[in-house]
Amino acid sequence: MPKRILIDCDPGIDDALALALAHGSPELDVMGLTTVGGNTDLDRTTENARCLADYYGLVVPVVRGAGRPLVRAPRTARDVHGESGLGGVLLPPATTPPDDRHAVDFIVDALAAAPGEISLVAVGPLTNIALALHKEPRIAEWAAEFVVMGGSYTRGNNTPAAEFNIAADPEAAAVAFDAPWRPVMIGLDLTHQARANAEVRTRFRGLGRLETELISPCLDFYGQHPSYRDGGPAIHDACAVAYVIAPELFRTAPARVDVETWGRFTSGMTVTDFAAPEPNTDVATDLAADRFWDLVTEAFTRVAEHLPA
Amino acid sequence: MPKRILIDCDPGIDDALALALAHGSPELDVMGLTTVGGNTDLDRTTENARCLADYYGLVVPVVRGAGRPLVRAPRTARDVHGESGLGGVLLPPATTPPDDRHAVDFIVDALAAAPGEISLVAVGPLTNIALALHKEPRIAEWAAEFVVMGGSYTRGNNTPAAEFNIAADPEAAAVAFDAPWRPVMIGLDLTHQARANAEVRTRFRGLGRLETELISPCLDFYGQHPSYRDGGPAIHDACAVAYVIAPELFRTAPARVDVETWGRFTSGMTVTDFAAPEPNTDVATDLAADRFWDLVTEAFTRVAEHLPA
Amino acid sequence: MPKRILIDCDPGIDDALALALAHGSPELDVMGLTTVGGNTDLDRTTENARCLADYYGLVVPVVRGAGRPLVRAPRTARDVHGESGLGGVLLPPATTPPDDRHAVDFIVDALAAAPGEISLVAVGPLTNIALALHKEPRIAEWAAEFVVMGGSYTRGNNTPAAEFNIAADPEAAAVAFDAPWRPVMIGLDLTHQARANAEVRTRFRGLGRLETELISPCLDFYGQHPSYRDGGPAIHDACAVAYVIAPELFRTAPARVDVETWGRFTSGMTVTDFAAPEPNTDVATDLAADRFWDLVTEAFTRVAEHLPA
Amino acid sequence: MPKRILIDCDPGIDDALALALAHGSPELDVMGLTTVGGNTDLDRTTENARCLADYYGLVVPVVRGAGRPLVRAPRTARDVHGESGLGGVLLPPATTPPDDRHAVDFIVDALAAAPGEISLVAVGPLTNIALALHKEPRIAEWAAEFVVMGGSYTRGNNTPAAEFNIAADPEAAAVAFDAPWRPVMIGLDLTHQARANAEVRTRFRGLGRLETELISPCLDFYGQHPSYRDGGPAIHDACAVAYVIAPELFRTAPARVDVETWGRFTSGMTVTDFAAPEPNTDVATDLAADRFWDLVTEAFTRVAEHLPA
Repeated sequence: MPKRILIDCDPGIDDALALALAHGSPELDVMGLTTVGGNTDLDRTTENARCLADYYGLVVPVVRGAGRPLVRAPRTARDVHGESGLGGVLLPPATTPPDDRHAVDFIVDALAAAPGEISLVAVGPLTNIALALHKEPRIAEWAAEFVVMGGSYTRGNNTPAAEFNIAADPEAAAVAFDAPWRPVMIGLDLTHQARANAEVRTRFRGLGRLETELISPCLDFYGQHPSYRDGGPAIHDACAVAYVIAPELFRTAPARVDVETWGRFTSGMTVTDFAAPEPNTDVATDLAADRFWDLVTEAFTRVAEHLPA
Repeated sequence: MPKRILIDCDPGIDDALALALAHGSPELDVMGLTTVGGNTDLDRTTENARCLADYYGLVVPVVRGAGRPLVRAPRTARDVHGESGLGGVLLPPATTPPDDRHAVDFIVDALAAAPGEISLVAVGPLTNIALALHKEPRIAEWAAEFVVMGGSYTRGNNTPAAEFNIAADPEAAAVAFDAPWRPVMIGLDLTHQARANAEVRTRFRGLGRLETELISPCLDFYGQHPSYRDGGPAIHDACAVAYVIAPELFRTAPARVDVETWGRFTSGMTVTDFAAPEPNTDVATDLAADRFWDLVTEAFTRVAEHLPA
Repeated sequence: MPKRILIDCDPGIDDALALALAHGSPELDVMGLTTVGGNTDLDRTTENARCLADYYGLVVPVVRGAGRPLVRAPRTARDVHGESGLGGVLLPPATTPPDDRHAVDFIVDALAAAPGEISLVAVGPLTNIALALHKEPRIAEWAAEFVVMGGSYTRGNNTPAAEFNIAADPEAAAVAFDAPWRPVMIGLDLTHQARANAEVRTRFRGLGRLETELISPCLDFYGQHPSYRDGGPAIHDACAVAYVIAPELFRTAPARVDVETWGRFTSGMTVTDFAAPEPNTDVATDLAADRFWDLVTEAFTRVAEHLPA
Repeated sequence: MPKRILIDCDPGIDDALALALAHGSPELDVMGLTTVGGNTDLDRTTENARCLADYYGLVVPVVRGAGRPLVRAPRTARDVHGESGLGGVLLPPATTPPDDRHAVDFIVDALAAAPGEISLVAVGPLTNIALALHKEPRIAEWAAEFVVMGGSYTRGNNTPAAEFNIAADPEAAAVAFDAPWRPVMIGLDLTHQARANAEVRTRFRGLGRLETELISPCLDFYGQHPSYRDGGPAIHDACAVAYVIAPELFRTAPARVDVETWGRFTSGMTVTDFAAPEPNTDVATDLAADRFWDLVTEAFTRVAEHLPA
């Protein structure tokens, strides 16, 4: 039986690819998408999530969440993801009507209705997750697992010290990492092992419209970013989804992760202590990259074969 | 027509007196109580609010809210309010069944249903208010007014720099003060003008059971605190309710209030700049104390006369 | 026998008056002036100190010290003290040759040479004091007393939370307050009891050139500052010198003073806990203002009588 | 002509090896050692520096400096370096009389006397350097170069974020990196390329007393530390000295280094931005390790041959 997965996202280029991976994987049953402001503003991330779901033929609730970080002023990553959040991808407008619930309520209600059954995966800033934990602390026990794309144990990308998803809402991240569950942190050290270089991109040839309309425009745009010039863009968010599908492709190490919320130069850093006596997180350190790309390619192939007209 | 008022509270001794003032004032129509962890833990503040409503004959929803601050670990003021939160007061158990909504939803739904009509008064930590602003930013325009008991522009009580309600959840307070409404700050500089000294207490003689069962035990317990030894205890929360009833008893000054969230010794301080070019708050500075106590005495008298058996 | 006093200063209008008070008081023997950047830059404060000493006929070493705060970027109070640091006062250029020692060495050597005999008074940012404590920690036991003009236990003047001398170098202030001596803090709460209002200024009539050339231009300029519009300018620095002359004019209370160095809105605040179990400071709270002005007037009269041609 | 080098140190095991490298290198003329509290307390680091100089036959001033960080409470690394600071090494007591100057004066006077000629190398906390910059800002232009062993651009050793020398006095480090010279940062990323593994240690066989009395006890003790279990201990401080001898063994990259002084979990981190438009530091990234060990072995051999009886 497939694992049920709820994805909190801010599409975002790599979110788009992560959603394709989730939708195309028979191991997963995507039961909902919730949106948060992040790579671009909440209106766009919500619209993007709806368009992507329609485009892929993924029929699930797409539920709008928080537009502002828990305490700080909003920031986006439009320099990486473009004004629209999807780089140069042009999708038809969403046709599925919007869901009028709030993401926080959706998360709480979904997990309450199926304790121990749903994998919660967050690939944007952790604002919705923190708010859901505030509304109903028991979601920390109800989630089957909690996988975060975010953070780093060496260097950041948004600042030298901090990865974007955590830097965008450090206080929410602190709440999420400190809750009594066991997050799996898929940080930059891991995702930089999943870079769509030229060799990888040959795998996607022959995927037809999915390639020409989505994958290529995504990777072309994303790959222009200076930090990705050598080695191709890192497909961060897809790694978190892959972890739910195939954790055996990942090596993790237990660590205490504390999110810095006070630093002048370090706000949003995930300070990771692998020697801490009381670890609170499993930090992904190594990826079996070839098998990861196999997984992705197979999923993309399935999506490509069933793309709605 | 009376003003509709929604009180977010953490009873709490002075909360108990504030609720009596609100209930006994014909100028007000209490439409709901929401509870938050603060003076004592959320279970107790919720139970206390229900017991007090039953005791006063105040028939309104009492809706449980957030038990933990937005980012920090919880702290309480049990040293001031006693283990139960109501000092030496012993009330019968609550009989009204609990409300199963969440305070944040109640606040959002109430304000959404009657834009411009409801005075929102917060006399505990501002966690529920911040969460409500996150769920629905438009409550900042829907609230008829937003009155906060909290803060100080000189010295604190929880620490030398910070008042308890703000110190208990500085990040929530920052969210609440920074939202696009115009908070009225009823801080310690004001509430220390409302101290229940011996002269004031003579006013409450003859209020029968209300005095012997509630007012006296409250003030006796509260007045033992070292900071109140001279001049009697300050009835903080009642001042915020009084502001809604009779703003003409208060002098306020516009100021920019920034809540310190980073200081080692100053977290939770309401840094108040009366010379700021863009004030965001009306800060109460002077109280017509005699008239305030008239107001309180009249309200208490009404409550005493209609106390359920 | 007069008390020997070493004044670390940043003239500065009120420094000028403090120096006149010190020089004109038979109870004091000024044994040196050290300078620090503060009210204006170090070049100017040093030049001003030399000019003032020459003008008053005060023959002492004037020794240049630190031009930058311990950790932060420099800031000045030119808005209060004017570009020159002495408002509209025009003094002849200094004729005494500059002293080529460093203020930090001068302080250390002076206190080392006469343990228990010299009152150290700091009326500018505490950079020199902190550096001297670093070079020779034993100055904390060698100083006969250490009196600081700086800080506040209610509100600041440089920011709502912080007084200028402490705000200008919070880290140095933290070092100075944390050293194992017992600072006397003459903060704004005290100095605002020493305001040169119209009544006070009548006392200075008849002081001849001292009045027309120095006192009046100082007070006129200083009094223009918006914060002094009602009640006349506070003569902060002179209060610290007066404390050395006549501590009986001051009431003090023991308190723990912690200097906030981390706050976003509160850096440089002297967080003052009068209930702390281990006080580290005597905080001045009340001034016998009439007797203070008597002291000042008598000293100014002596200075006026012996003003060099 | 050899380069003149002034070494500010806190011996310390790797300091001991760094001093041997400096003394044994004909390319260098060690003109003084200044000491600072760090790996162990100032009394010990000063005594250790004197003993080591005597032991090696290095006849130079050994000048005692600051015992406490600029703002914070002292901390040591006795867990790494042992109670004495030199692990299990037992040296005869120092016989050269102590120098009665202060390290800060020595540094300032030395650089002032020979502008552009002296390489300043700091291998302990940067307290003395910061104090010297405060006393005489022009040392930033007088130093021929300023090489720091400290910091990291990925992970720390004292905390997950911070290297010990910087963590021990972050404010001093901030002063040192922000001064108008161009520090060369020899951080952990570099020094972890200089690990005395078994192969390296065979190079030191045959060095007689130097090996048995000093090198082996140092490396044995140092290598016990859990972080060095695999691969042998990193000889941090010797790398900074090696940079002065042979910069061609190092690859560096320009970067903006900001020292975090505010973080709760990140204080003392050297936040390193390789993409900053205005770099202030040359950060060492790659070491030609074989040639480094050649350099070290040759220097140790020379020291061994001339060891005083």
